[in-house]
Amino acid sequence: MKIFIAGIDGYLGWALAQYLTARGHEVAGNDVFLRRAWVAEVGSDSALPVYSIEERAAAFEAHFGKSLNFRQGDLLDYDFICNYLADFKPDAIVHLAEMPSAPYSMIDQKHAVLTQQNNVIGSLNLLWAMKEVCPDAHLVKLGTMGEYGTPNIDIPEGFFEVEFRGRKDRLPFPRQAGSFYHWSKVHDSNNTMFACRIWGLRATDIMQGVVFGTRIDEMGDDPRLRTRLDFDQCFGTAINRFCCQAVIGHPLTVFGGGKQRRGFLPLRDSMQCLTLTCENPPQRGEYRVFNQFEETYTIHELADLVKEVAEEAGLNPVVHCYDNPRQELAEHYYNPDRQHLIDLGYQPSHDVRAEVRIMLADLMPHKDRILAKQAILVPDIRWDGSRRRSEVIDAEPIKS
Amino acid sequence: MKIFIAGIDGYLGWALAQYLTARGHEVAGNDVFLRRAWVAEVGSDSALPVYSIEERAAAFEAHFGKSLNFRQGDLLDYDFICNYLADFKPDAIVHLAEMPSAPYSMIDQKHAVLTQQNNVIGSLNLLWAMKEVCPDAHLVKLGTMGEYGTPNIDIPEGFFEVEFRGRKDRLPFPRQAGSFYHWSKVHDSNNTMFACRIWGLRATDIMQGVVFGTRIDEMGDDPRLRTRLDFDQCFGTAINRFCCQAVIGHPLTVFGGGKQRRGFLPLRDSMQCLTLTCENPPQRGEYRVFNQFEETYTIHELADLVKEVAEEAGLNPVVHCYDNPRQELAEHYYNPDRQHLIDLGYQPSHDVRAEVRIMLADLMPHKDRILAKQAILVPDIRWDGSRRRSEVIDAEPIKS
Repeated sequence: MKIFIAGIDGYLGWALAQYLTARGHEVAGNDVFLRRAWVAEVGSDSALPVYSIEERAAAFEAHFGKSLNFRQGDLLDYDFICNYLADFKPDAIVHLAEMPSAPYSMIDQKHAVLTQQNNVIGSLNLLWAMKEVCPDAHLVKLGTMGEYGTPNIDIPEGFFEVEFRGRKDRLPFPRQAGSFYHWSKVHDSNNTMFACRIWGLRATDIMQGVVFGTRIDEMGDDPRLRTRLDFDQCFGTAINRFCCQAVIGHPLTVFGGGKQRRGFLPLRDSMQCLTLTCENPPQRGEYRVFNQFEETYTIHELADLVKEVAEEAGLNPVVHCYDNPRQELAEHYYNPDRQHLIDLGYQPSHDVRAEVRIMLADLMPHKDRILAKQAILVPDIRWDGSRRRSEVIDAEPIKS
Repeated sequence: MKIFIAGIDGYLGWALAQYLTARGHEVAGNDVFLRRAWVAEVGSDSALPVYSIEERAAAFEAHFGKSLNFRQGDLLDYDFICNYLADFKPDAIVHLAEMPSAPYSMIDQKHAVLTQQNNVIGSLNLLWAMKEVCPDAHLVKLGTMGEYGTPNIDIPEGFFEVEFRGRKDRLPFPRQAGSFYHWSKVHDSNNTMFACRIWGLRATDIMQGVVFGTRIDEMGDDPRLRTRLDFDQCFGTAINRFCCQAVIGHPLTVFGGGKQRRGFLPLRDSMQCLTLTCENPPQRGEYRVFNQFEETYTIHELADLVKEVAEEAGLNPVVHCYDNPRQELAEHYYNPDRQHLIDLGYQPSHDVRAEVRIMLADLMPHKDRILAKQAILVPDIRWDGSRRRSEVIDAEPIKS
C-alpha cells in the first residue's frame, strides 16, 4: 500500500515510517519539525539523540534500500498538502501531525490558541485536501483515550446504544477531555466524523493510550534510525519519563496519589495497531473509532514497576508523589473497550517489564543528556494558568 | 447590570443593546463589521437599511439618552478584548461574535477554515480574557439548536442521565451537528464547559433556535435603530427569507420536502430570553445549557403560514420545494426540551402570525432593495462542496 504519514519526523511518525517500509509498504511523509522546536522551547531535549532529517534519510536509505519520500511543509499550508497528496496518491494517510501535549496547551493563552489552531485547522485542511485530491484514501487519524475523560460508565469505542425516556438511538459517546490539547482532538474527531458523513470519506479515529518505548526491532542498531524520547513535563509521558528519571537517580515523579488509571501501550504495539488499521480499511463513508491500548494501569503501579526493573538493572530509584499540577480525578472508575483491534488481529505484547528493561538499556548510554536537563523534571505548568513547581507530597525513603 | 455584547453590530447584537439599555442595564460592545462584509461577499444586502455605526450611535444617544459604549475590534485580537473587558468590568458578557451561517461555512476550504478559525479561536480568546480580567463575570454564549442535530431520542438541555451496561452517569448530550459552522459551535461549547470546570468561570450556553423578526418595540420608529434583516442563502434564515420573498412575489424557497422540524423564536423572544439569562446568573464554576426557542415547526408549515399572512396582506405568494442543497434528514423525530428558560420566567409569545404581519409591513417599503438582489434567492451552495442552483422539485400552482 501507499501510506502517507503526516508528521513523519515525530516520536510515532519516524518509527512508523520504518515499520511500514519493513513490511513492504511504500511510505511518504511531511513535517516542519515543530516537535523539535517545542521541546527546545520548554527547555528540554530528547534523551536519545535526534539526527537531522538528512541524516535520518541517509540511514533510512542505507537500511531499507529505498530513498525516503519526504517534503518539508505544514498541514496549515493547504496548497502544500494538496500538491503532495496529489503527487503521492496514497491509499492511507496516518495523521500524526498534531501538537500532542496537554501541559503545553495549558501554559497560557498563546499556547492554547497555538494548539487548537494547529490541530483543528491542520486537520480540517487535511479533510478538505482528501476530498479534493484523494477521496478514496483511508484517513487514520490519531485521537487519544483522553478524549473520553473518566466517565463513571464503561467507555465503548466511539459510539453507544442509548435508551432515553423510552426511545433508542446509536449516538457518539460523550467526550469529557481534560486539557485544551485533549479538546482539540475531540474537535478533530467531530470534524472527521462529519466529513465522512457528507463527503463519503473513510476514516479510522484512533483513541490511543499513552505510548512508551525507545525502539522497535525494525530500527536495527543505527542510532540515526532511533526515534526521539522525551522526558520533560510537556512531551515526556509517564513510563518514558520514569525510565529517564530512574537512569539518573531522580525520584520518579508521580502526580497526585498516582491512582489515576489510564490505557498504555508499547511503541511496538502502537506500530502493530496502526499498521493493522491501514491494512484493513473501512468502507467509503464509514467513520469508525478504535480504542488502542495494551492494558490499563494506574500511574503508581507503573512507577513501581519501573522502579523494580531498574533495581534489577542495578539502579536505586525512589518513587515520589508530587502535588498534581493537572486537574483530574484522583480516583475513578475506568473500563474502556478495546475489542475492534483485537478483532483485526492485534496481539497485545503484555510484557511491560521486558519493554522497560530494553528502555533502561537504551537510555543508560545517554545518561548525560538527561542529567543536562534535570532542572525540568518536576512539573510547574498548572491547570489554573499559573506556574509553580510541584511539591513532594509523599516521599518514599531512599534505600541505603 | 453591566453587560458586554461581543458582536454588537449584528442582527441580535444591535437589538440586544437597545433592549438591555431600555431595561436600565449599562451596555458596551465591540464589532469589526464582518457580518456586513460577508453578506456583501455573497452578493446580497440587508433588506432593511443598515446605517453606519456612527449613525447608529447618534440615534442610540438621541433615543436612550446615553452614549453608545463601542470599540471597533476583534475577539481574534487578544490584547484588544482583554483591555476592553478590563476597562468596562462587565457583570455579564453576551457572546454574539461568531460567524453564524451554515452554507457560508460549506462553500469551500477557505470558508470552512475562516469559520472555525474565527469562532473557535475568538471564543477561546474570550475565555482566557475572562479568566485573566473578569473571572466573576457570567458568559452568555450563543450556541445553536443545530449542535444537537436530529437524534431519534428527546433532546435534553445539554446533559442527560445515562444508564449503560448497568452503571449510571450524568454526561454531556452527544452532538451531531450538520455543517462546519454548527460544529464550530460544538467546539466552543466544549471549550466553554472545560473552562468553567478548571477555572471556575460561570457560563450559560444558549442552544438557540432559528430567530425571525424585523424589530423589537424598544427600537421605536427611527430607521437607524432598526436591526439588519438578511434574505440570502447564507445569512437569511427561513421565516426572514420567506417574508422577503413574499414581498417581491418570488416563490418561497422550501429546501427538500420541508418536513425538517426545527425550533424557532421571534427576535423579541430571543431578547427576552437572553435578558432573563443575564439577570439570573449561575454559580461560579457552573456551566449550564438552555435550549432557547418558542416552539418547533416544520419548514413547510412556516412557509404555508407566511403565505397565508401574506395573502391577507394582499400579496399573492406561492411555495415551491427545491432540491435540498444541504445534507440533512428529510423526516425525523424531534422533541427538544426548553424548560430551563420557562422556569426563569420566559413567556413564549406564541403568535407567529402577528410577528409575520409586522415583518411584512416593515419589509414592504424596502421591496426595491430585495428586488435588486433577487438573483441570489435560490440556493447554490451544496454540502458536497460544489455550486449548483437548486431546481424546483414541487411547484405550487400560481393562483390567478
